[in-house]
Amino acid sequence: MTLEQTIVNIARRAKSASSTLLALSTVIKNRVLIRVAELLLEEKEALQRANGKDLQLGVEMGLSAAMLDRLRLTDAVITSMVTALHELCALPDPVGKIEDFVKRPNGLLVGRMRVPLGVIAMIYESRPNVTVDAAALCLKTGNAVILRGGSEAIHSNLALATILKKALISQGVSEDAVQIIPVTDRRAIDILLTQDELIDVVIPRGGEGLIRFVAQNSRIPVLKHYKGVCHLFIDKDADLDKTVPLVINSKTQRPGVCNALEGLLVHQDVAAAYLPVLVAALIEKGVELRGCPKSTAISAQIHTATDSDWGTEFLDLILCVKVVGDFDEAKTYIQHYGSKHTETIVTENYSTAQRFLAEIDASAVMVNASTRFNDGGQLGLGAEIGISTTKLHAYGPMGLEELTTRKFIIYGQGQVRE
Amino acid sequence: MTLEQTIVNIARRAKSASSTLLALSTVIKNRVLIRVAELLLEEKEALQRANGKDLQLGVEMGLSAAMLDRLRLTDAVITSMVTALHELCALPDPVGKIEDFVKRPNGLLVGRMRVPLGVIAMIYESRPNVTVDAAALCLKTGNAVILRGGSEAIHSNLALATILKKALISQGVSEDAVQIIPVTDRRAIDILLTQDELIDVVIPRGGEGLIRFVAQNSRIPVLKHYKGVCHLFIDKDADLDKTVPLVINSKTQRPGVCNALEGLLVHQDVAAAYLPVLVAALIEKGVELRGCPKSTAISAQIHTATDSDWGTEFLDLILCVKVVGDFDEAKTYIQHYGSKHTETIVTENYSTAQRFLAEIDASAVMVNASTRFNDGGQLGLGAEIGISTTKLHAYGPMGLEELTTRKFIIYGQGQVRE
Repeated sequence: MTLEQTIVNIARRAKSASSTLLALSTVIKNRVLIRVAELLLEEKEALQRANGKDLQLGVEMGLSAAMLDRLRLTDAVITSMVTALHELCALPDPVGKIEDFVKRPNGLLVGRMRVPLGVIAMIYESRPNVTVDAAALCLKTGNAVILRGGSEAIHSNLALATILKKALISQGVSEDAVQIIPVTDRRAIDILLTQDELIDVVIPRGGEGLIRFVAQNSRIPVLKHYKGVCHLFIDKDADLDKTVPLVINSKTQRPGVCNALEGLLVHQDVAAAYLPVLVAALIEKGVELRGCPKSTAISAQIHTATDSDWGTEFLDLILCVKVVGDFDEAKTYIQHYGSKHTETIVTENYSTAQRFLAEIDASAVMVNASTRFNDGGQLGLGAEIGISTTKLHAYGPMGLEELTTRKFIIYGQGQVRE
Repeated sequence: MTLEQTIVNIARRAKSASSTLLALSTVIKNRVLIRVAELLLEEKEALQRANGKDLQLGVEMGLSAAMLDRLRLTDAVITSMVTALHELCALPDPVGKIEDFVKRPNGLLVGRMRVPLGVIAMIYESRPNVTVDAAALCLKTGNAVILRGGSEAIHSNLALATILKKALISQGVSEDAVQIIPVTDRRAIDILLTQDELIDVVIPRGGEGLIRFVAQNSRIPVLKHYKGVCHLFIDKDADLDKTVPLVINSKTQRPGVCNALEGLLVHQDVAAAYLPVLVAALIEKGVELRGCPKSTAISAQIHTATDSDWGTEFLDLILCVKVVGDFDEAKTYIQHYGSKHTETIVTENYSTAQRFLAEIDASAVMVNASTRFNDGGQLGLGAEIGISTTKLHAYGPMGLEELTTRKFIIYGQGQVRE
């Protein structure tokens, strides 16, 4: 078989499986998830052997210590996968939920029923635990899934695929519901992205390069976010006692992730009073500060920012600081440099808070809360398959409901249209 | 200015306008709509003069009588545009609506606020009244819109644009909120479809050729349906008294539209009894019937269908007829030949009805109701900008809510993440 035939065949089988997943009961879906959890523990040794192959090849290929670390399926990582599967079982199944059920004047009963999207292709670079995570979320929502992980994790991913398929078969579900692209050839992605008759959605996860590549080459709708350039605006009515922990938490609690703070905006009326306190706290946490001339005039510990610093996703202990004249200047700055991910205001002023929530265009807008809360688990979605910063279908963290759509169901009694 | 500069400039101005539309009050938006309605009547003569130019050119270009008819802005067409604008004013504005508002264990208040999509590009071939319809729906939902109508309606569309802009300016709203591509050069569409940094969604309306072109060339997400190949399945437990009017209405009430019936599936247990009655009624309405061997054996008035008839969108008084062995055969046929638009079952059997609603994958699934009800107005959406048969974002008729998305809003009291 050519590569193209292999990929098309995988997509065809996924589509065929999706038509049976559509009406699968929640009980069966949960039983598959539980069986995956059991098998992860039962077959841990084989799994870690496969993972060992990836690690060895990784060392030979000169992967960094950090990358090898993310690749490693330790006992702790496997335990956390098992825990996540049990938590997912406990979440409500959105499929079949009927919303907005109304009776029309002609007696038709019209409702909107949540149904799976169909076939989802996940293209990712991350750790192999994403394989189980993504497969489980798609399965719980009745979607078939095609997984294409990083080439450096291929042995681990194939071992995980074996476990996933065993669990599906054990409950009488088509093993084609979860498939892993078995080749590392990059052209497989190009072929996958043109199967718009067979695949309903593509979700890329990884660096901006991968995501842009997918977005530009896909004929299938893509759910994505390129990056998280998040800001916190300290309004003139901000409470300093709240401000310091919010800035520290947003920037330093986990600086390498997309909802970490990258830009601090300070209202000029409070800049002279607040900045020295904030700078001291940030520097104590090892944060490097790069600011506008007004901010460097207030604190010598802020270095002068270069043009390329503004709007940069550092993913590191670096923070841009800008003093702004008023709300409108902060808003204009956010519109220009933000990535529609997470924007926070710190203020005690009711009207300013309401205006920020209404006028700022981002997937999550917050008042007096850490940017780190823009996360499916934290916002109550229970689980998350990614974050979308494009507005179609989903905007912000995507949970189980975002892996479904709604069809109209109509109960008639013989009505015809006049 | 080059064509590219013209188009990019239009898209830039639309994006800039969208940031002010975002927070525009419903009162102002409705006032603009009312002003459009007033101006349509006040400036009717100028409008009909511009329309006259299109009609004259259309005659010279040899447009069919039917096409000229659709192009004509008669007094009646203008009155119906005015009525539609008043009805749209009366509909609730989805923007700003807060849903799923919850209190998290840490005290954060988390809700999801409906916000406009941003900038919408409409590419259409239809009658010039679509120009006002689409502009009004986008404006009501706080979206900026770029309209690209058929070249044969360019003078009418530019005259309508003048009215729309006057109405916007009269209420202090940016005239860039509604823009019409002023050139008929087809390359304008290619350029438009690559402006993914400026345009949030593309909605094509027209023939399958146009829609496939847009879907294949767009870097911007597309909301679309290619065609409507709708079926009605007469189950063995169907009530004949309901069946006949349902089939006649679905097929003949308006055969040229996407929710008209194209394929009739008849359970073999009732085929011999029901088909003769149905055939007589359909032939009386001028419907040509093309069927499978089993159906032609029952009625000599059914012609033998060719392979290319199955799954065809006739948009005409032609109907395919197939006798099926059971529910599963009907389901398999629908999955293979259907276009995920509208599927109806006629049955008195409770379990069969429920199974059809759950298992058939289409934007609208119905029991004992005419396929013609798959329409925004009929299903209670109030207004409709199109129908989507892809599952992302919208599935089925798209009303005002489908022109919005939801962002997360978070009311904190200083919470940080642990």
